[in-house]
Amino acid sequence: MSGNSIGKLFTVTSFGESHGPALGCIVDGCPPGLELSAADLQGDLDRRKPGTSRFTTQRREADEVRILSGVFEGKTTGTSIGMLIENTDQRSKDYSGIANTFRPAHADYSYNQKYGFRDYRGGGRSSARETAMRVAAGAIAKKYLLSRYGIEVRGYLAQLGPIRAQTLDWSLVETNPFFCPDADAIPKLEKYMTALNKEGNSIGARINVVASNVMPGLGEPIFDRLDADIAHAMMGINAVKGVEVGAGFDSIEQKGTEHRDLLTPEGFVGNNAGGVLGGISSGQDITVSIALKPTSSIRQPGATIDTQGQAMEMVTHGRHDPCVGIRATPIAEAMLAIVLMDHLLRHRGQNADVVCDTPAIPAARPE
Amino acid sequence: MSGNSIGKLFTVTSFGESHGPALGCIVDGCPPGLELSAADLQGDLDRRKPGTSRFTTQRREADEVRILSGVFEGKTTGTSIGMLIENTDQRSKDYSGIANTFRPAHADYSYNQKYGFRDYRGGGRSSARETAMRVAAGAIAKKYLLSRYGIEVRGYLAQLGPIRAQTLDWSLVETNPFFCPDADAIPKLEKYMTALNKEGNSIGARINVVASNVMPGLGEPIFDRLDADIAHAMMGINAVKGVEVGAGFDSIEQKGTEHRDLLTPEGFVGNNAGGVLGGISSGQDITVSIALKPTSSIRQPGATIDTQGQAMEMVTHGRHDPCVGIRATPIAEAMLAIVLMDHLLRHRGQNADVVCDTPAIPAARPE
Amino acid sequence: MSGNSIGKLFTVTSFGESHGPALGCIVDGCPPGLELSAADLQGDLDRRKPGTSRFTTQRREADEVRILSGVFEGKTTGTSIGMLIENTDQRSKDYSGIANTFRPAHADYSYNQKYGFRDYRGGGRSSARETAMRVAAGAIAKKYLLSRYGIEVRGYLAQLGPIRAQTLDWSLVETNPFFCPDADAIPKLEKYMTALNKEGNSIGARINVVASNVMPGLGEPIFDRLDADIAHAMMGINAVKGVEVGAGFDSIEQKGTEHRDLLTPEGFVGNNAGGVLGGISSGQDITVSIALKPTSSIRQPGATIDTQGQAMEMVTHGRHDPCVGIRATPIAEAMLAIVLMDHLLRHRGQNADVVCDTPAIPAARPE
Amino acid sequence: MSGNSIGKLFTVTSFGESHGPALGCIVDGCPPGLELSAADLQGDLDRRKPGTSRFTTQRREADEVRILSGVFEGKTTGTSIGMLIENTDQRSKDYSGIANTFRPAHADYSYNQKYGFRDYRGGGRSSARETAMRVAAGAIAKKYLLSRYGIEVRGYLAQLGPIRAQTLDWSLVETNPFFCPDADAIPKLEKYMTALNKEGNSIGARINVVASNVMPGLGEPIFDRLDADIAHAMMGINAVKGVEVGAGFDSIEQKGTEHRDLLTPEGFVGNNAGGVLGGISSGQDITVSIALKPTSSIRQPGATIDTQGQAMEMVTHGRHDPCVGIRATPIAEAMLAIVLMDHLLRHRGQNADVVCDTPAIPAARPE
Repeated sequence: MSGNSIGKLFTVTSFGESHGPALGCIVDGCPPGLELSAADLQGDLDRRKPGTSRFTTQRREADEVRILSGVFEGKTTGTSIGMLIENTDQRSKDYSGIANTFRPAHADYSYNQKYGFRDYRGGGRSSARETAMRVAAGAIAKKYLLSRYGIEVRGYLAQLGPIRAQTLDWSLVETNPFFCPDADAIPKLEKYMTALNKEGNSIGARINVVASNVMPGLGEPIFDRLDADIAHAMMGINAVKGVEVGAGFDSIEQKGTEHRDLLTPEGFVGNNAGGVLGGISSGQDITVSIALKPTSSIRQPGATIDTQGQAMEMVTHGRHDPCVGIRATPIAEAMLAIVLMDHLLRHRGQNADVVCDTPAIPAARPE
Repeated sequence: MSGNSIGKLFTVTSFGESHGPALGCIVDGCPPGLELSAADLQGDLDRRKPGTSRFTTQRREADEVRILSGVFEGKTTGTSIGMLIENTDQRSKDYSGIANTFRPAHADYSYNQKYGFRDYRGGGRSSARETAMRVAAGAIAKKYLLSRYGIEVRGYLAQLGPIRAQTLDWSLVETNPFFCPDADAIPKLEKYMTALNKEGNSIGARINVVASNVMPGLGEPIFDRLDADIAHAMMGINAVKGVEVGAGFDSIEQKGTEHRDLLTPEGFVGNNAGGVLGGISSGQDITVSIALKPTSSIRQPGATIDTQGQAMEMVTHGRHDPCVGIRATPIAEAMLAIVLMDHLLRHRGQNADVVCDTPAIPAARPE
Repeated sequence: MSGNSIGKLFTVTSFGESHGPALGCIVDGCPPGLELSAADLQGDLDRRKPGTSRFTTQRREADEVRILSGVFEGKTTGTSIGMLIENTDQRSKDYSGIANTFRPAHADYSYNQKYGFRDYRGGGRSSARETAMRVAAGAIAKKYLLSRYGIEVRGYLAQLGPIRAQTLDWSLVETNPFFCPDADAIPKLEKYMTALNKEGNSIGARINVVASNVMPGLGEPIFDRLDADIAHAMMGINAVKGVEVGAGFDSIEQKGTEHRDLLTPEGFVGNNAGGVLGGISSGQDITVSIALKPTSSIRQPGATIDTQGQAMEMVTHGRHDPCVGIRATPIAEAMLAIVLMDHLLRHRGQNADVVCDTPAIPAARPE
Repeated sequence: MSGNSIGKLFTVTSFGESHGPALGCIVDGCPPGLELSAADLQGDLDRRKPGTSRFTTQRREADEVRILSGVFEGKTTGTSIGMLIENTDQRSKDYSGIANTFRPAHADYSYNQKYGFRDYRGGGRSSARETAMRVAAGAIAKKYLLSRYGIEVRGYLAQLGPIRAQTLDWSLVETNPFFCPDADAIPKLEKYMTALNKEGNSIGARINVVASNVMPGLGEPIFDRLDADIAHAMMGINAVKGVEVGAGFDSIEQKGTEHRDLLTPEGFVGNNAGGVLGGISSGQDITVSIALKPTSSIRQPGATIDTQGQAMEMVTHGRHDPCVGIRATPIAEAMLAIVLMDHLLRHRGQNADVVCDTPAIPAARPE
């Protein structure tokens, strides 16, 4: 399939540009009988939407989603689910200045070289605005996983520039605009972001996502491993430059005796695996960490070229997030949920009649 | 497709277990007219194969590949290429002891839970032995990319446990068993590995891969981004726990002014992007870095459970690599080449460079 | 991918039910630079739409399509094209009577057994109403094929019940509500359909589709043969029960000397192949013929069961086409165009004809 | 994926040419725990293999298949199954004469135009020799379908040239070299084929395939309908020019009252649907009929062109089937089994938790 689809049995296909009339997607393969309405999706859409705090872009979008098909009498029918979000706050004039130039670190240049020209308004298809539909699709997966299997997918901001969350208090995540789980870090973040805005600069971030209560057995070796498909989905999020599962890059300096998670009848000892062994879920929590680069649109001038290849200097105006990571938590959750959903359906398909005599052990041994 | 295929136009599908009679794969979509023989593949296979130094498993495999189809009179025909490698040095008795137990950090438990039982001989399908076919397939992609487009894919060991390569001298990489590009690091690696073997332990590693001379335009937004498919291919390699493109996790602490690669008519200034902007190649070098966990098979005892769920302690015997990273360089190169090849064809088609001497005849002869 | 997508590089994914708020589809993989507007699609949509003559359903739908993405400044950008058609003339009450029964020869029963329940309004997803989006997507393919390669895709009604078109006058096809190419047959068709309506019955039909000026080389052996993918696309049209390419079922009684199309420098002698040899286009016209069953919704009573499995008798009310074949010509053209487009891209890539005025800059600026 | 794969969850990928060293395929997605050995496949391979009667090609091939992976201790493991058949009776000299010419009605010309050159030995990849692997893969599907669900897939020769089977006696099918179910037709077939051989000509045929005891619910609307995927699989068999499901082309002249299969608690009345309603299996028998063209290789001379486009006359020597239809029955069975298997897995994946209150009715009402 072409590049705007993800998933093999639970397939999400999307369309829409930053400044087009609307964004939309089709969720194909959702099992029938799931109670679903737009209200089930709006919560995550509101968590992602812009303009909710002074630390994100001031573009105002209601991001109200309409479900156009696939739901009848309040339940999914098993047919494809069409969803639509109208764009309401485009200001194309903001971007007219960049029609003939390439913003450094943006997709402007690569899109232009690939397609011969580009929709320059707000980055067109390459804008993170597109991620709204991912969140809507992911919310369907999240609801199914939780209601049918008790699988919960949650994320948080683990680091922003130099500021790390030192503690993980899930109850805090939804109480601050950063999705930060550490009470001490929140005022530091506010202070840092205020200074950054004054500076007209941007900063990178780290988001962690966790899926708990995942049954063992999800993942299709050898290429469509669960962790491989998670890496694909995560690296496909705008601005992501790195993906880790479990111990991730710390594994480089670990010895086998440190890294291996021992098995006991009471549960796994540790989770360096991040919930995946040999590309198949182990029953441990799926733990994923991603690195997001600093926003490329900043007010500080930089060298670039125009569409004729001539050197020039430019400043990016318009409304931008100084840290794309701040709004990335719901997006990362959505992508992880979509991948788990797809693998759940694939696993059921091939292995519906499997009987396993070995009891599954708990995700983790109690301390 | 099911999980043993990768790529959409340049598709590699593989089979084979550690202790089965043979490994094989089918490369589908290779453009016609490429001069190809087994000799073109053997070089990379020899770089990966076991038993070439005292720092890798002592299992002896010639890894001689046979091409069974898709090549005629020394050139690829455009039809599917079947390849086969016979296993010659299985010692299943080595593994009989683990038939009823799960080796910690191995795929034994997850395969068992997914499929209800497993081929326990050397990990069966989950063994890294399978990667031999990836290297053979990747060698086809490497030859096409280099001969047709001058695209070169190369890798090296960047770190092993605490030992980092401080310099990058490509001329050294093939001269030592570690694929290490730093002369000073090589004796340290030998000393470290010797001690590690005595200890009966294992260690992680970092491999870097670079593709140079890649044209701009490869990658299919928004889900099949080039970097997303690279992440999928890399995380799908045995023991890989993390993938970075360009600045990777360093992006977290970078500001926009540091991270962005400015454009000048003379070229890009820096390469924090790792050659990918908005999921599409920019013409910069594609730079990828991966983290490999320490080998799970070590001689030190560890707690685990048996297939009845009962607690027990086990020691892994048999022949194993103390650092899987040492042999991972050719595998990572192969996977990057496969992804680039697939995206090149998606961008330009399988037969865009075909020259046909036979004139096409009219649809129908005039009455 | 799941079942609502067709095509691998030129991919059409659709959603929508007969009585939902809207129908939509996403066309992914359309090459950039094609001049496109809704007006280009409306012509074929109008050819398919209901209520244009007294021989089709009296449901009134404007079938006005909106293009929501993928087109900028009048040209396709190479990104996914979202399209939407609002439903305007639903009358769900017409269907309330069948909520608990299964209309014979309809998808009611099979959908119910597959999904556990169904959207019974007008057949929900199984309604031919869905084909409007196929026609919109096909119109994009038709425009590209014709404008870039001079490939023309045309169809006509070859037979309706006992009435056969004896002559093929392309100039007549668009001048009558049946897409009939035989002047003598048209009055017979009117007479026959008038009587059929009185009888409250329905009838089958045969549609022929021809693609001319197709270059040799399209089709991917051995499974994705061009004719195999054509058969898939055609049999996937509502009510189609048979597909032929070239001589089709007449081949059964042909000898090799009769069937084979000889090759001469002036062209092929005959076209029993239907333009496909070994699954690859030969340069002859692609000729396809399909059989459509009579509409299942008729006013004559018939035995069936209710959702409890109890026997009952039912009559189908509501507004229906007495011959679905009458409106099937534009649908069959659309599906053939979509398949040709997909294979053209697989053969030559999405962007093979892109011209980029911006020179590529070097990978890195010299130090 | 590229063209040598079929199926989405149960995926068959194949390689091999008529005169290469071997044919092979990979079956990916087979559920674990199925008892399987080469002996399970050899039966169908022997039914297809050449040289078993004087009415087929005299090429001698044992067609002995080896299973190289995916089976452990006599049961499938759920991993990919690699299979290999060595070619033993190639006589390339037979074909040297056609290196520079195109055999009429063969794939020689279309392959040459697509790929720029071709493996001319026996048609290379386009040879029906390739179908041996389809039969091996289909035998796995047949065994799973029958042993797990009682689904039986059977076929027979319905017509050869002018000779039709007038009766259907399943017990006769395996007792004659034609797979003919009509005792009276067998001597006519022998007489006809003997005369045809003398004449140096070839003839077409019709094969019917039936799948019985199929549960309702298989098929993924709207594009991957069960009948659409069956059409794809059948039209993809060498020499097939037409595919019908149920009433097929007879539907053209049927009225709704004739065509519709009424539903009763005792079963369906008739089977014009061929077991598929709205693209989803209904529980009726799946009935498929295909038309095969006469063999293109005949001893009578015919006009053609050479690779320089010059006119010439040629005669096809070598060993050929005078009627490819004679050996096509096991191939058609295999393809139908593969499609059913794939859709069974896809259905289980999406709908594993569906509860349907409506009891399934029998395939057919007793007379």
